[in-house]
Amino acid sequence: MRWISDNDILIVGLGLMGGSYAKRLRSLGYHVEAIDTRPEAITYAVEHGIIDCGYTEPTEDAIRRAGVLIFAVYPHVFVDWIRQWGHLIRWGAMVTDVTGVKSGIVEEVQQLLPAGVEFIASHPMAGREVYGVENADDRIFRDANYIVVPTDKNTLEGIEWSKELGRLLGFARISVLSPEEHDRMIGFVSQLTHVIAVALMTCSDSTHLVDYTGDSFRDLTRIARINDAMWSELFLMNKAPLLEQMDTFIDEMHTLRGMLEAEDKEGLREKMRLSTARRALFNK
Amino acid sequence: MRWISDNDILIVGLGLMGGSYAKRLRSLGYHVEAIDTRPEAITYAVEHGIIDCGYTEPTEDAIRRAGVLIFAVYPHVFVDWIRQWGHLIRWGAMVTDVTGVKSGIVEEVQQLLPAGVEFIASHPMAGREVYGVENADDRIFRDANYIVVPTDKNTLEGIEWSKELGRLLGFARISVLSPEEHDRMIGFVSQLTHVIAVALMTCSDSTHLVDYTGDSFRDLTRIARINDAMWSELFLMNKAPLLEQMDTFIDEMHTLRGMLEAEDKEGLREKMRLSTARRALFNK
Repeated sequence: MRWISDNDILIVGLGLMGGSYAKRLRSLGYHVEAIDTRPEAITYAVEHGIIDCGYTEPTEDAIRRAGVLIFAVYPHVFVDWIRQWGHLIRWGAMVTDVTGVKSGIVEEVQQLLPAGVEFIASHPMAGREVYGVENADDRIFRDANYIVVPTDKNTLEGIEWSKELGRLLGFARISVLSPEEHDRMIGFVSQLTHVIAVALMTCSDSTHLVDYTGDSFRDLTRIARINDAMWSELFLMNKAPLLEQMDTFIDEMHTLRGMLEAEDKEGLREKMRLSTARRALFNK
Repeated sequence: MRWISDNDILIVGLGLMGGSYAKRLRSLGYHVEAIDTRPEAITYAVEHGIIDCGYTEPTEDAIRRAGVLIFAVYPHVFVDWIRQWGHLIRWGAMVTDVTGVKSGIVEEVQQLLPAGVEFIASHPMAGREVYGVENADDRIFRDANYIVVPTDKNTLEGIEWSKELGRLLGFARISVLSPEEHDRMIGFVSQLTHVIAVALMTCSDSTHLVDYTGDSFRDLTRIARINDAMWSELFLMNKAPLLEQMDTFIDEMHTLRGMLEAEDKEGLREKMRLSTARRALFNK
């Protein structure tokens, strides 16, 4: 198991997610370095003991020293970085990421990397509506899902390594999906829900209703505070699966609308009973 | 202020809401009686000190004794009850309710009641996904909204009385809306959100995704566990305002779908920025 050797860990992108990875891994005794273009992020992380040391741009030394590289940057930044610096990663190193969409990007990164470097994609399904290493908090992993997303280029050892990383980070559940399965799933449980939350805030000016919102409205729109640069990129990367999920949902809204219009009380009740039964399975 | 006299309180319908009202009011020292068709509800409430005494059907004595009557039953049950028993309510008594839709029902109840009895409608915007007096908990009122919904038949004293009841119950915010304003607002912040949550659960069979749902999906579907008898009744009572809100929301989903289809990244980002700015106002 490669975790047993004391390889240095290099985290590229020290935001909320990179910072939370760093915090957890350093607290477990690993040597953790980081690269982030924001000098304040590096300074903050060093001062607060989140990383051992950091850089505001890639350096050959830091890259060559790392036995584990974790990318917590925007998808297009990730691919560009690998294209420019990937050849410096040493033989035997493990590379992983936190990207929320997998098809396309995983295969491209695997092709770009030099022989002897294994990229095993993963998606930590954790997040908050706050940004930056200043909000890093490894408790966001508790109760959350960690998904390993291998392709046929990955080794069994690589998959086991990724699962072990998920366990070390403290995730509650670890599972394995193909890139296509992952993207279809994420289109539904994450992206569609974000589209709905945004639509609920933008469909009409509700600001005069602020005093009247109860838990329901707040719950449905919590994720409507959204990093527009990141999420628009993720939506476009997952265009086809997300469009399909949106169409399914819009169709169902039309069906419910038709039932209300026709005063089909029994039809509405049947939908509500189905919804109640399904949702009960998700409770914890 | 009528609260100062030691009138008995009679709660009709001892479910989650009626039970939570009873618990709070009795803890403040009021004498609280209740009527509920479920003998177990009455027995439980007496044994747990939630009410002083209770009945499984309306009795002339109990009704005549009450200076305050609070109806926490289904809308159609409320109107039928008043039609059958309303004439027994004594001169000077105050009547209120917890019904989630107001137009139509408020005017009807006011017409049915005898002279000298004032019905002031109110809507406590609190609830849980559990039912029955066994789950009664007056902490559900904290942080929640209490809406007084007067008509031109109500007196200023009646409106003040209702606000005072909201304060006694421990609501964080108390406001006053007309029945029409109330129903339009509730169509958006409460009913539309419940329709969306139901649609998200019923649009496709997601039960195999239970392991992959994060906070977003759970938040958006928490209210998808829904009392189908009550909510279908509320939806139909508020048909026109709810249809209007659903159409506005469905239109916006179509707009966002079109932007994704056309890969209009800037359009999507603009929507996300608007959503983020608006949602920030709702934060607390």
